[in-house]
Amino acid sequence: MEAGEGVSSATPTEEMNGAGNLMDFLDEPFPDVSTYEDFHTIDWLREKSRDTDRHRKITSKSKESIWELIKSLLDAWSGWVVMLLIGLLSGTLAGVIDLAVDWMTDLKEGVCLSAFWYSHEQCCWTSNETTFDDRDKCPQWQKWAELMTGHTEGAGAYVLNYFLYILWALLFSFLAVSLVRVFAPYACGSGIPEIKTILSGFIIRGYLGKWTLLIKPVTLVLAVSSGLSLGKEGPLVHVACCCGNLFCSLFSKYSKNEAKRREVLSAAAAAGVSVAFGAPIGGVLFSLEEVSYYFPLKTLWRSFFAALVAAFTLRSINPFGNSRLVLFYVEYHTPWYMTTQLGKYPVLEVIAVTGITALLAYPNPYTRRSTSELISELFNDCGALESSQLCDYINNPNMSRPVDDIPDRPAGPGVYNALWQLALALIFKIVITIFTFGMKIPSGLFIPSMAVGAIAGRIVGIAVEQIAYHHHDWIIFKNWCRPGADCVTPGLYAMVGAAACLGGVTRMTVSLVVIMFELTGGLEYIVPLMAAAVTSKWVADAFGKEGIYESHIQLNGYPYLDVRDEFTHRTLATDVMRPRRNDPPLAVLTQDSTTVEDVETLIKDTDYNGFPVVVSRESERLIGFVQRRDLTLAIKNARQKQDGVVSSSVVYFTEDAPQLPASNPQPLKLRRILNLSPFTVTDHTPMETVVDIFRKLGLRQCLVTRSGRLLGIITKKDVLRHMAQMMNQDPESIMFN
Amino acid sequence: MEAGEGVSSATPTEEMNGAGNLMDFLDEPFPDVSTYEDFHTIDWLREKSRDTDRHRKITSKSKESIWELIKSLLDAWSGWVVMLLIGLLSGTLAGVIDLAVDWMTDLKEGVCLSAFWYSHEQCCWTSNETTFDDRDKCPQWQKWAELMTGHTEGAGAYVLNYFLYILWALLFSFLAVSLVRVFAPYACGSGIPEIKTILSGFIIRGYLGKWTLLIKPVTLVLAVSSGLSLGKEGPLVHVACCCGNLFCSLFSKYSKNEAKRREVLSAAAAAGVSVAFGAPIGGVLFSLEEVSYYFPLKTLWRSFFAALVAAFTLRSINPFGNSRLVLFYVEYHTPWYMTTQLGKYPVLEVIAVTGITALLAYPNPYTRRSTSELISELFNDCGALESSQLCDYINNPNMSRPVDDIPDRPAGPGVYNALWQLALALIFKIVITIFTFGMKIPSGLFIPSMAVGAIAGRIVGIAVEQIAYHHHDWIIFKNWCRPGADCVTPGLYAMVGAAACLGGVTRMTVSLVVIMFELTGGLEYIVPLMAAAVTSKWVADAFGKEGIYESHIQLNGYPYLDVRDEFTHRTLATDVMRPRRNDPPLAVLTQDSTTVEDVETLIKDTDYNGFPVVVSRESERLIGFVQRRDLTLAIKNARQKQDGVVSSSVVYFTEDAPQLPASNPQPLKLRRILNLSPFTVTDHTPMETVVDIFRKLGLRQCLVTRSGRLLGIITKKDVLRHMAQMMNQDPESIMFN
Repeated sequence: MEAGEGVSSATPTEEMNGAGNLMDFLDEPFPDVSTYEDFHTIDWLREKSRDTDRHRKITSKSKESIWELIKSLLDAWSGWVVMLLIGLLSGTLAGVIDLAVDWMTDLKEGVCLSAFWYSHEQCCWTSNETTFDDRDKCPQWQKWAELMTGHTEGAGAYVLNYFLYILWALLFSFLAVSLVRVFAPYACGSGIPEIKTILSGFIIRGYLGKWTLLIKPVTLVLAVSSGLSLGKEGPLVHVACCCGNLFCSLFSKYSKNEAKRREVLSAAAAAGVSVAFGAPIGGVLFSLEEVSYYFPLKTLWRSFFAALVAAFTLRSINPFGNSRLVLFYVEYHTPWYMTTQLGKYPVLEVIAVTGITALLAYPNPYTRRSTSELISELFNDCGALESSQLCDYINNPNMSRPVDDIPDRPAGPGVYNALWQLALALIFKIVITIFTFGMKIPSGLFIPSMAVGAIAGRIVGIAVEQIAYHHHDWIIFKNWCRPGADCVTPGLYAMVGAAACLGGVTRMTVSLVVIMFELTGGLEYIVPLMAAAVTSKWVADAFGKEGIYESHIQLNGYPYLDVRDEFTHRTLATDVMRPRRNDPPLAVLTQDSTTVEDVETLIKDTDYNGFPVVVSRESERLIGFVQRRDLTLAIKNARQKQDGVVSSSVVYFTEDAPQLPASNPQPLKLRRILNLSPFTVTDHTPMETVVDIFRKLGLRQCLVTRSGRLLGIITKKDVLRHMAQMMNQDPESIMFN
Repeated sequence: MEAGEGVSSATPTEEMNGAGNLMDFLDEPFPDVSTYEDFHTIDWLREKSRDTDRHRKITSKSKESIWELIKSLLDAWSGWVVMLLIGLLSGTLAGVIDLAVDWMTDLKEGVCLSAFWYSHEQCCWTSNETTFDDRDKCPQWQKWAELMTGHTEGAGAYVLNYFLYILWALLFSFLAVSLVRVFAPYACGSGIPEIKTILSGFIIRGYLGKWTLLIKPVTLVLAVSSGLSLGKEGPLVHVACCCGNLFCSLFSKYSKNEAKRREVLSAAAAAGVSVAFGAPIGGVLFSLEEVSYYFPLKTLWRSFFAALVAAFTLRSINPFGNSRLVLFYVEYHTPWYMTTQLGKYPVLEVIAVTGITALLAYPNPYTRRSTSELISELFNDCGALESSQLCDYINNPNMSRPVDDIPDRPAGPGVYNALWQLALALIFKIVITIFTFGMKIPSGLFIPSMAVGAIAGRIVGIAVEQIAYHHHDWIIFKNWCRPGADCVTPGLYAMVGAAACLGGVTRMTVSLVVIMFELTGGLEYIVPLMAAAVTSKWVADAFGKEGIYESHIQLNGYPYLDVRDEFTHRTLATDVMRPRRNDPPLAVLTQDSTTVEDVETLIKDTDYNGFPVVVSRESERLIGFVQRRDLTLAIKNARQKQDGVVSSSVVYFTEDAPQLPASNPQPLKLRRILNLSPFTVTDHTPMETVVDIFRKLGLRQCLVTRSGRLLGIITKKDVLRHMAQMMNQDPESIMFN
């Protein structure tokens, strides 16, 4: 029975009754794993039914002995154990990445004399000579120019620092792109579009493999530290999914079943977002709203647990539990979109973009620092003690003491200066982010797009604040803004702007709001955040229904059946099925009149994944469906191990083969590899219903009948092609099957 | 074409080609609405395909004229308009209910002299004579005894107040139960289980009707004000769904399509929770995790919008925007569960339980006040100024000034007193809540179960705090609790306790945590809250997999296919389909050899919802499926309006009826009511797959074939019966179809 489980969805009773004599010959030849080939889609129904068989077997065995009972309990809890492991490992990795990025980002500017492995903040943190006002300056931390020449000021020091900054950035990005190129080509980009595709039931071997798990975190640290306009949220989701895949291999329940494996991967994606943003609930919702395809309630609970463990682990590691705005980045890249000549030379491209980024970013204080620091400053409200340029307001001399609730004040020269720099930073960020997306290094889009939104929001916020201060008698301000009150908070505008920009790029709604308030703790701003999310979704949808992941999936031609696309055309199954009119007839097998040779010819001449079995070519009544792979293996084995099976042997898919005279060649009985419950629809079924069935049941193919006669077959690829055609797209853009 | 849309899922092309001559006779007889009968399940696939037809028609018409284009735009936006209206109305209703409950709860104790319609808080709010310390006491607010006798103290005044408290409580509950009995029997209970069932595709006429919408808010106010141990969260969800149903009737898109209507109702449920708790995100997640059955992403976005509008409206209405802990209650009742003799006399039962509740609740300060006030106090941390008995700690005389961060202190006599009263309140709440659930008045379970959890949590919290204070050298406290530090917060224990208790009752996870932190603003406590939710789910699941709604649905025998139940038995479609062995053969029609009389006899003799149509009784190859209702109407119409159709006329389901000699009676062509794409599975399909198909595609019935021959039929009720049987439950407990 062991071998049978992996290869056939023939019903268990059938297997037991009909296939006794074949069992001996077929004991080992069907490996349970990798029953699907690379770049093929899985059959969800079949995978689930295999898992149920496995579960039933364990349950019935558990009554036999204590040991079997313990094994069945372990099996039942293995899901939670895997979640625990994923949470622990991805939390740890994220913590280490955070620390490394902090250190390496600061390394571009200077070094800590007391311990070179300290970041700027850690360096001054451990120093006691720091005053409260000037936390960033301490003697242990020296910029490169200071260390090398002893000068801290002057044009020479500035140029030297500038030069070394660019040099470090180039070195980091060169290392990143080389490592990706040599060791793990799949480690580039954010990985979210591919993970969406994998979760929808597609096989991409090695995408979540060990090499990716090893290389992606390292290159991610390098890429982020180099100062490129990219984030690490998406890559962290990819890394967490690699962890999930790794731990799946510990339990045959998950490693041998592609559907169960995808349940684990969905939860791992939640853990990834959880550590990327420090937002466990947001992670679960992100996985649900944005990434996952099949997300039963059980997976919801497990994702919740994995996200919890991951967030907890990260919090335990992070030595500075003070920053809410953990490193939180994005999830997008378009390596095949960039059609510049540079795109052909990925290393050169990365070096060039890094050089330009570093060259332009250094002079502007808002682009020199790390993007998450920038966002953090933009979100901040100006307290009275704030030393930032953005908070250079003219204080009212009558104000008795610095309290939290500071009324609106006129802007000082620092604020106007900051406005100019922010405007330049906005343009720079928009342009450079567009060029950074497509490169062959790990990269995400969350942080860059949030930064763009936050800069725009802060500029608008300051403008409104100053208008309200100078013109508080205008009608729009009259009712809610008395003079001397704190009625405009530019930081809130920045937060809403960031949410709106991110929402427009990804089209997230609920998960966006939850992530934003988990990030900022601004639970009271839930209504403006929700309004921003809804508005940006409406506006963005007016330009095109697809978010950035879907566009990317389409660009790559992955066979992804989007749950959001509504199919509203009047076509019928008969318009989509193959064979089309004028095509050769459908390749079928008959239940009791095909010879081994016929089958072998059919396999050689066609490349279909499987063949329908009918009663006879005249009646064409459908009996079942047989997988190409199973057929090949079964015939190969029978020829090797079963005496008397020759080319002229008749293949029987019936329950009992007739007693043949001894002169006839030995028949080959193959009922056990026959799927007796293939999915069928009638030729009159509207395609809308067919699309719904493919989507919800995760089918690989579906047979088309009329009054019980087999007419044709529809595969997932046919459905996708037809949908592309109906939307006036090139049907040949669907590349894989 | 108009008439055809409502009754047939025959494909459009068929309708247009084959049924020209019938159109005249069938112009009006098929009303579009109510194509389903009461207590029947809907066919999701058919409804969705009807909506697509409608959508296609509007889209193609929109190219004809500007007016049609505007109409099509209106149609596209009608979903958002409905959401806006639902949000506005349910927010308004919730606001009014909140105000009324405040006033009537206080009315049991006394009255405001300056304006009798003021609640205690409003009364003293408007009074200027209140000091900060004693906000609750002001001369305008008089207890009944004071008003009637002039005495405020003494046994006489206490007894009089006690007596009047009980009297008011009895009056309120009597009014509530009578109104429910006379005007709207469906207004009783929480409504969540029924709404879950309705959303899964069941028809319960009048459950979301106008009378329920009118009566439920009024009786809800009365029931909550009477002081019974019940909440208003569930009933508010029911009220919001009634609003949703009301606004559906404004748009034919929703009123004429049961599947589209359910999308609106899912969003309305989110709006209901949003206003019940003031938790818009929690509402969306509650609707997703707990209530809804079919929840596409589009519904998620719309729910999000409805919840946003509802929360905004409620916030605008609420004159005291200060209380985060809005009235937030539960969702459960078991009217058929209570098998006491009292249960037969609902009015008497309500009066008795109210009497006992009032009698026992008044003497204990923790049960006298409204439950949400109690929870609010239990969640609160003790500030230095707190006057509550629970905060009667012995202050350290050395402490210089009252700051927020107060170290742990030894408990004073007030705290010990409070502990005793809380313990009694805990027992009382548990017992009385059990008896209150089943009564015939609007009632919810959120608030009572949160109260139970919060009381238990606070007691544990105080105990741990005192142990930590007195024994801070114990190992468990040593590492995190230095003397003089604030290391135990009893309020947090109460919050976690409330979440755990609610989680155990309802088995919510993600939505529970989101609701809890939207309620309390305690975003930093997300990890303990998540841990509580996961633990309580594990513990509760160990006792039984079903939450309180699922148990209730099962008690009532609703045909609800729970997505959480995993079906893991080895049965096949052939074991479940009817006819069973020894049953009479399946009632079928043939495509060209049944007479009108035969059909009429079949309809009279059976009560099936529809009949399969086969080629002939000999071949039994399936052609399609015809609804009983359509058949009855078509024959009735043909007999009335079509000349020459008599009992011996042959009914043709084929594309073309043969040319018959004039002597034969006129044939009746019925292809247009024939569904040419009935859903089929083979007899070997595992039941597990069949259950999955029913669940995901929302089927009403499914035909069973073998090699293209019709063998039998499986209805949703058959599936549910079989599942009950496999779980060793009484299959006859599935009562409706």
